[in-house]
Amino acid sequence: MSSKSEMLRKAFNSPGLIKVAGAHDGLSAKLAEENGFDAIWASGLGISAVQTVPDASILTMTEFLDAAVIMNESCNLPVIADCDSGYGNIHNVTRMVNKYEAAGIAGVCIEDKVYPKLNSFDDRKQILVSTEEFCAKIRAAKLAQKSEAFVVIARVEALIAKLGQEEAYARGKAYAQAGADAILIHSKEKTPDEIIEFIQQWDLDTPIVVVPTKYPNISMNELEELGVKASIYANQALRATYRAIDDTFKSIISNQSTVPIEENISTVDDIFRIQSVPEMKQLENTIYKEYVKQ
Amino acid sequence: MSSKSEMLRKAFNSPGLIKVAGAHDGLSAKLAEENGFDAIWASGLGISAVQTVPDASILTMTEFLDAAVIMNESCNLPVIADCDSGYGNIHNVTRMVNKYEAAGIAGVCIEDKVYPKLNSFDDRKQILVSTEEFCAKIRAAKLAQKSEAFVVIARVEALIAKLGQEEAYARGKAYAQAGADAILIHSKEKTPDEIIEFIQQWDLDTPIVVVPTKYPNISMNELEELGVKASIYANQALRATYRAIDDTFKSIISNQSTVPIEENISTVDDIFRIQSVPEMKQLENTIYKEYVKQ
Amino acid sequence: MSSKSEMLRKAFNSPGLIKVAGAHDGLSAKLAEENGFDAIWASGLGISAVQTVPDASILTMTEFLDAAVIMNESCNLPVIADCDSGYGNIHNVTRMVNKYEAAGIAGVCIEDKVYPKLNSFDDRKQILVSTEEFCAKIRAAKLAQKSEAFVVIARVEALIAKLGQEEAYARGKAYAQAGADAILIHSKEKTPDEIIEFIQQWDLDTPIVVVPTKYPNISMNELEELGVKASIYANQALRATYRAIDDTFKSIISNQSTVPIEENISTVDDIFRIQSVPEMKQLENTIYKEYVKQ
Amino acid sequence: MSSKSEMLRKAFNSPGLIKVAGAHDGLSAKLAEENGFDAIWASGLGISAVQTVPDASILTMTEFLDAAVIMNESCNLPVIADCDSGYGNIHNVTRMVNKYEAAGIAGVCIEDKVYPKLNSFDDRKQILVSTEEFCAKIRAAKLAQKSEAFVVIARVEALIAKLGQEEAYARGKAYAQAGADAILIHSKEKTPDEIIEFIQQWDLDTPIVVVPTKYPNISMNELEELGVKASIYANQALRATYRAIDDTFKSIISNQSTVPIEENISTVDDIFRIQSVPEMKQLENTIYKEYVKQ
Repeated sequence: MSSKSEMLRKAFNSPGLIKVAGAHDGLSAKLAEENGFDAIWASGLGISAVQTVPDASILTMTEFLDAAVIMNESCNLPVIADCDSGYGNIHNVTRMVNKYEAAGIAGVCIEDKVYPKLNSFDDRKQILVSTEEFCAKIRAAKLAQKSEAFVVIARVEALIAKLGQEEAYARGKAYAQAGADAILIHSKEKTPDEIIEFIQQWDLDTPIVVVPTKYPNISMNELEELGVKASIYANQALRATYRAIDDTFKSIISNQSTVPIEENISTVDDIFRIQSVPEMKQLENTIYKEYVKQ
Repeated sequence: MSSKSEMLRKAFNSPGLIKVAGAHDGLSAKLAEENGFDAIWASGLGISAVQTVPDASILTMTEFLDAAVIMNESCNLPVIADCDSGYGNIHNVTRMVNKYEAAGIAGVCIEDKVYPKLNSFDDRKQILVSTEEFCAKIRAAKLAQKSEAFVVIARVEALIAKLGQEEAYARGKAYAQAGADAILIHSKEKTPDEIIEFIQQWDLDTPIVVVPTKYPNISMNELEELGVKASIYANQALRATYRAIDDTFKSIISNQSTVPIEENISTVDDIFRIQSVPEMKQLENTIYKEYVKQ
Repeated sequence: MSSKSEMLRKAFNSPGLIKVAGAHDGLSAKLAEENGFDAIWASGLGISAVQTVPDASILTMTEFLDAAVIMNESCNLPVIADCDSGYGNIHNVTRMVNKYEAAGIAGVCIEDKVYPKLNSFDDRKQILVSTEEFCAKIRAAKLAQKSEAFVVIARVEALIAKLGQEEAYARGKAYAQAGADAILIHSKEKTPDEIIEFIQQWDLDTPIVVVPTKYPNISMNELEELGVKASIYANQALRATYRAIDDTFKSIISNQSTVPIEENISTVDDIFRIQSVPEMKQLENTIYKEYVKQ
Repeated sequence: MSSKSEMLRKAFNSPGLIKVAGAHDGLSAKLAEENGFDAIWASGLGISAVQTVPDASILTMTEFLDAAVIMNESCNLPVIADCDSGYGNIHNVTRMVNKYEAAGIAGVCIEDKVYPKLNSFDDRKQILVSTEEFCAKIRAAKLAQKSEAFVVIARVEALIAKLGQEEAYARGKAYAQAGADAILIHSKEKTPDEIIEFIQQWDLDTPIVVVPTKYPNISMNELEELGVKASIYANQALRATYRAIDDTFKSIISNQSTVPIEENISTVDDIFRIQSVPEMKQLENTIYKEYVKQ
């Protein structure tokens, strides 16, 4: 039986784009699997949002890990945990990798912002740590992992911080040389231009990961042709959830009953299925047939 | 400043139907508040479903409590925690009340099923504990609470278990006399007939709570006119979430991009708002103006 | 690198008595390792006692698991988790095994008492489940484990419940045939006589585990000669802790200072050592030498 | 019924030295109460040490809070939580106060070190944040608390960092003016001289708290006469625990049995008592007499 880290590493070493779904709980992770995604992004924004706190290192590593573990247990896909800036210094990164790996998470992604961080789409000033300090964190992460397969992704925020392509490239290269298994290059431009420029300039073997939230007008096929290895659809499930719940509650209050929405929502049986109630009944049949005469 | 228990108790003592929204995380709880509900039902089915486990006492009290606390911190409404059959015997109920009350939850609801329980809509056999045993649990709960305001609701599953109106009434009465602050009478019939029969027969002052999931064809107004005190819309937000995420993931995979769904989902700014990012910025302005010259 | 389950299974398959230390936190687990024990017993009594609640299924599986994980992370020994009666029915046992195995715990022990349980030395009536029901739980546990190495120990409480040698033997045999990897036979007699009688009568290959708390007058050598495979010193660290803290606080209050006790307690440097502060400094030297010029 | 915050605030406003015991779990907290201490210090060193990790912001706020809650539930004393440097910036402090206050903790103490911090007795370089930045944290803490009674203590590490009396006084004064309810002045000198100098120079009404770990040669009476308001015996219970467990395990291994230590450790009945087993039996009698005829 191969571990989830091995599954993820194998995907990085095989041809084709890895399609990654951002999830925020077990339900979204399992639905991602059922719909054909290859891996889960345990989104910091998503996990924060379902607890209604800012994506600004407000939740603790413990809370982010607990959420990632629920996603991991809820599906058979490997989970990549969005670990913000690593929750502190090299010692916090070391413990983080120890905890996430021991919990069966396939890989982690850390970004070169200060702690506490801000969400990349926040309009306040984005502050990065020095290249050296972040390389030290990557090195600590790689030293901490027990299995060879565990994946450490380094996220470059230089474009988010408006530091330019040169800085982004220099940081990406330094992180790759420090041992990062992949480089996530992030952008909040409305077109994919600066991402395309970065990718075309990239001359290392280390694979590239992108998050086309703000520049959706580039398809999976186009990303794959550009040489991108993984694309993360980070928060669409969350935003769909917000809209659906808001509409549902609005309808119940204004119609004084649930009749008008019954057709628009899943059935209770759908819920039972996603909860594995049929498997539960099957286990009872298997075991009770043998041991309990009812 | 009145506590959430006091808010909930006051609602039970005031005219009008209490509109309760089933929630399963902080986001759903906060959207319930924004849409005009009066209280939150920390749904056992919902909390289990977003972790993709059956609603059958699989999650522990710790896990249910953690989820209820997140809901409680996410909104200003009082939270009623669905506490299944009380997680064991009178000692487990005692600790449960101590923990939930200390955490600021306004009230709990326990049901007269055995531990471990099954979801009321599950088609397997539903087994109840004796009336005496359940009265002992209610008594333990009432002895355990520290403040007078904390609310203990007793849920009668006699109709669910097909034991008839007489048994349902006898149990409801015994539970009320043992100290329950309200009686939740549950039904899985497709019409409200048996619920109406129970209510019309009810001759105690103890208020009645219903959950019209399977019999949606009765409006809030009709329930209020019947004398029902609270109506719980227990799992519609959950079922809307399932449908929305499933549709969203399906679209991304089949269209190879998120373009077609962008109009159907909330914006990132909606998410920032629900996370209180504006309040966060305001706090920075207030404090940094005073102490840090930037 | 062999897993802790493999380490534990190997110990059960090798000659010699396995010396098991009852622990209740990371400190006691690590001190057990340093003093030469072979495995850790994540004691239900111990974990409950340091939270000052009865050993009566008051803490949840989540709380017991969290404590076991801390012990597991704190030492290199395999941890056997005392899982009481399995926290419910076969479905609770299934989830329990899934969670404990995923967390890296080497094995679990479940006992044939009802849920909620009482501590075996409690003088109230001890109630057991039927042999069939407990066999079903063992079968569920064995079906749930993912690796072959994970160890499931079945604890026979028939002597504790005063049901006699015949019942104890019959239960032990049934549990072994249902798949238990070892049988823990418990006794609260002040002499080892009934334990010796059980062992001498035991004619299966399944190894025997004992807990000589109430009958300390039998040495490790004697147990080994009798053919016992593992002996658990379950709560002595806890009881030593109680006495030491009580004496220390008494002295501080009566002497109005800590001077008289300074010689009787460890140094702060001992604490730093057990916290791996030296390893922390070494990691800094390794990484910062490479990446940060200070 | 007055809250624990009110109890603690009242103690600060009454004559006499507040005797505070450092605890690391529920057992040590409860024994502190039984032996006559007035409050509990939920020690960061202690909580870290029983999980065998350095006292260097390795555990998360969640883990520290969980430990403090266990202490709080285990005794009737108010708990002061050692919250290191506040786990990040003003937003982390805000959430920290919200969480600790909601959990019933009486007060928190934050120190003016950077995050992640080092233990004050660690021989590596101690780095402080600017006075302005720390005042902003104190202000955030005071703005966050819901009740007036909740206590926020500011810890001055200027003497630990060898910055001199002048800097210590200036910081203490600024923190008091920013709203701190008390000033904890820490020292690692082997004599109380620098602490005495600080206290004699202190001319504000804000009360002073000390931790005479390294300078035990000053009694409670002497501290009280100097005008100190609270004295924390922060880690003696922990260090006694280490010594006691180490000795106990050593004896069991070398003697091959527990016989030689039975006299030196508490009885199982002592453990049952501290777990409130007698109260549990009494509750059964009360409730079962009424509802269950056995």
